Amino acid sequence: MVTATGYAAKHSFSRLKPIEIERDPPKANEVQIDVLYCGVCHSDIHQCENDWGNTVYPCMPGHEVVGRVSAKGASVTKHEVGDLVGVGCMIDSCHECGPCKAGDEQYCEGPNSWLATYNGPMKPAAQAKTGTNMYGRDNTFGGYSDVLVVREDFVLKIPASIPVEAAAPILCAGVTTYSPMKHWGVKAGDKVGVVGFGGLGDMAVKIAVAMGADVTVFTTTKEKVAEAEKLGAKGVVEGDKEASEALEGQFDFILSTIPEKHKIDPFIPLLKHDAAYVSVGALAPMPGWNHMPVIMGRKSIAGSLIGSIAETQEVLDFCAEHGIAPDVQVIPIQEINEAYKKVKSGDVRFRYVIDSASLAQEKAEAA
Amino acid sequence: MVTATGYAAKHSFSRLKPIEIERDPPKANEVQIDVLYCGVCHSDIHQCENDWGNTVYPCMPGHEVVGRVSAKGASVTKHEVGDLVGVGCMIDSCHECGPCKAGDEQYCEGPNSWLATYNGPMKPAAQAKTGTNMYGRDNTFGGYSDVLVVREDFVLKIPASIPVEAAAPILCAGVTTYSPMKHWGVKAGDKVGVVGFGGLGDMAVKIAVAMGADVTVFTTTKEKVAEAEKLGAKGVVEGDKEASEALEGQFDFILSTIPEKHKIDPFIPLLKHDAAYVSVGALAPMPGWNHMPVIMGRKSIAGSLIGSIAETQEVLDFCAEHGIAPDVQVIPIQEINEAYKKVKSGDVRFRYVIDSASLAQEKAEAA
Repeated sequence: MVTATGYAAKHSFSRLKPIEIERDPPKANEVQIDVLYCGVCHSDIHQCENDWGNTVYPCMPGHEVVGRVSAKGASVTKHEVGDLVGVGCMIDSCHECGPCKAGDEQYCEGPNSWLATYNGPMKPAAQAKTGTNMYGRDNTFGGYSDVLVVREDFVLKIPASIPVEAAAPILCAGVTTYSPMKHWGVKAGDKVGVVGFGGLGDMAVKIAVAMGADVTVFTTTKEKVAEAEKLGAKGVVEGDKEASEALEGQFDFILSTIPEKHKIDPFIPLLKHDAAYVSVGALAPMPGWNHMPVIMGRKSIAGSLIGSIAETQEVLDFCAEHGIAPDVQVIPIQEINEAYKKVKSGDVRFRYVIDSASLAQEKAEAA
Repeated sequence: MVTATGYAAKHSFSRLKPIEIERDPPKANEVQIDVLYCGVCHSDIHQCENDWGNTVYPCMPGHEVVGRVSAKGASVTKHEVGDLVGVGCMIDSCHECGPCKAGDEQYCEGPNSWLATYNGPMKPAAQAKTGTNMYGRDNTFGGYSDVLVVREDFVLKIPASIPVEAAAPILCAGVTTYSPMKHWGVKAGDKVGVVGFGGLGDMAVKIAVAMGADVTVFTTTKEKVAEAEKLGAKGVVEGDKEASEALEGQFDFILSTIPEKHKIDPFIPLLKHDAAYVSVGALAPMPGWNHMPVIMGRKSIAGSLIGSIAETQEVLDFCAEHGIAPDVQVIPIQEINEAYKKVKSGDVRFRYVIDSASLAQEKAEAA
């Protein structure tokens, strides 16, 4: 067994604390990864606090992982020991269903759906109609730890030109915003709206600008307007009626990155006919909306979930090619609970990234 | 001037009563139509009762009109005197904007949007940014009258094989359900859900079955299950948890014809990934919904507005080709207020159609 040290929540109301876990050593098609950095996603907080009612404890989050391959199974061909690699939200899927065969693993329709990097399969045994678990486990432990063991085809290559610590959030925040823009066909010259300007919004703006779109950020925080402009976007303060009215019927695509329930009524009239408002963050009950302007313009309110493994590699390469990367603030893991508080307040635009070297201290103390 | 006799509401709270109006005689590109039948649409009731807050009184509804050309302007080439023709929801549009040029007049982005058969332009002068009215009028009078004058290119040809009285509802109920099925690519073998089984639902089922789809009707009225089966569809009573659970993740497309606010949460889980729930009737504020399953399956909640002029002709020809037509009950116009009550109760599956010959009685009394 491989002993891993990490941080986990034991209950929905507890702070994250150090724990030790055992991981299986790499099978023939798996690699072992020494973690260098792990991004802090708003989902980590939702999951630790059991906001979706499906958390298995202890909950060790982390699905924006960058590290180096330290060992590999006999049949591994994609990665070599020493390679700089990444692990995103998924570490396996059924490989048999329509979406899996089409390369859309994030919509896996297998009996247990896909296997999340932490918190286990999307459909644990109890929820699966078969009552079984093809992955053999109902919990997984994520990248808030010093070592990970993952199937080689769910491991991404990190381009050398991206700063290592900044590569981590591309694995979730990057692909979550890139995938819907690709799916809904965002192209140069399109007018794109980005609602919410935290970690996901930051990546959405950078990617959309790099795609050649004309980008407008909608934010509740006045101070973020100037930050949007620095990235080559326009900024509008939500609730500014005059600015909104001037933008009616103009957007080809609006991406909402708000990780909570939110009113969509201010945004639907801004869409062109046949355009979509896609919310990737609100895994939650939403308030009522006025369907009249949706009908009047054949508009869509849609959702999108992370992105496929192929798209994750694509967005990593896209970021390298365009010289873009998330704004990050590196913290030792001992500051994780403070970081959660700040992310929850909605004030931070950058992404917190854990420097996994800080886990050495816990290891020393445990020894 | 052409004197027309019809039925109209004078206030939001009044019953429809006979009135006389003057119509301009046909211009060079217009035809005059002696009305034979006019369908009764749920929108007629919403408009008369000012449910959308935009009604201009007197309000003379009727946008499912079948009649014979009785006179034509000098440049008219599409229609001859004596031709059996139809008029749907639109009688003009700007002809200049992107959607108009693409043949999507129902999404006209001209200063006043399209001109409705009754209640005038979708954007009256006061609402238009230009403050003017390209159509020269802020009210129009629909097919609850004995004569209509309409631009030739907004007049449809009624195929001879469709029973004349049954052709009327195809002009709104038919195209409103046909257009989204075409737009979202419904094809033979697809699993299609139809929510609500009134006049629109009846047409949706017939068209989807004729397209070769595997159709399931969701209705609140137990008795309608057998009627769905008669049309070659399956029937499920809304709220039947067991039946719904067995249908999870199976539908390629769900069309909601409910003309009021309604909960969408029971239907989203029934969609396949990448599939859409399209509501064509709920021009209203909708209750909150759970966005989680929308994100998890990249699903869409969308709307669709009637259909284009080209699609209206297409659906008329499609109905003729497949030998389908709405179930109708013909009434004299003197029973219109009673008919409204029954439509509002949601009990009727057929479409009421006014026999316009009954207006002769009003004409005689007025003389």
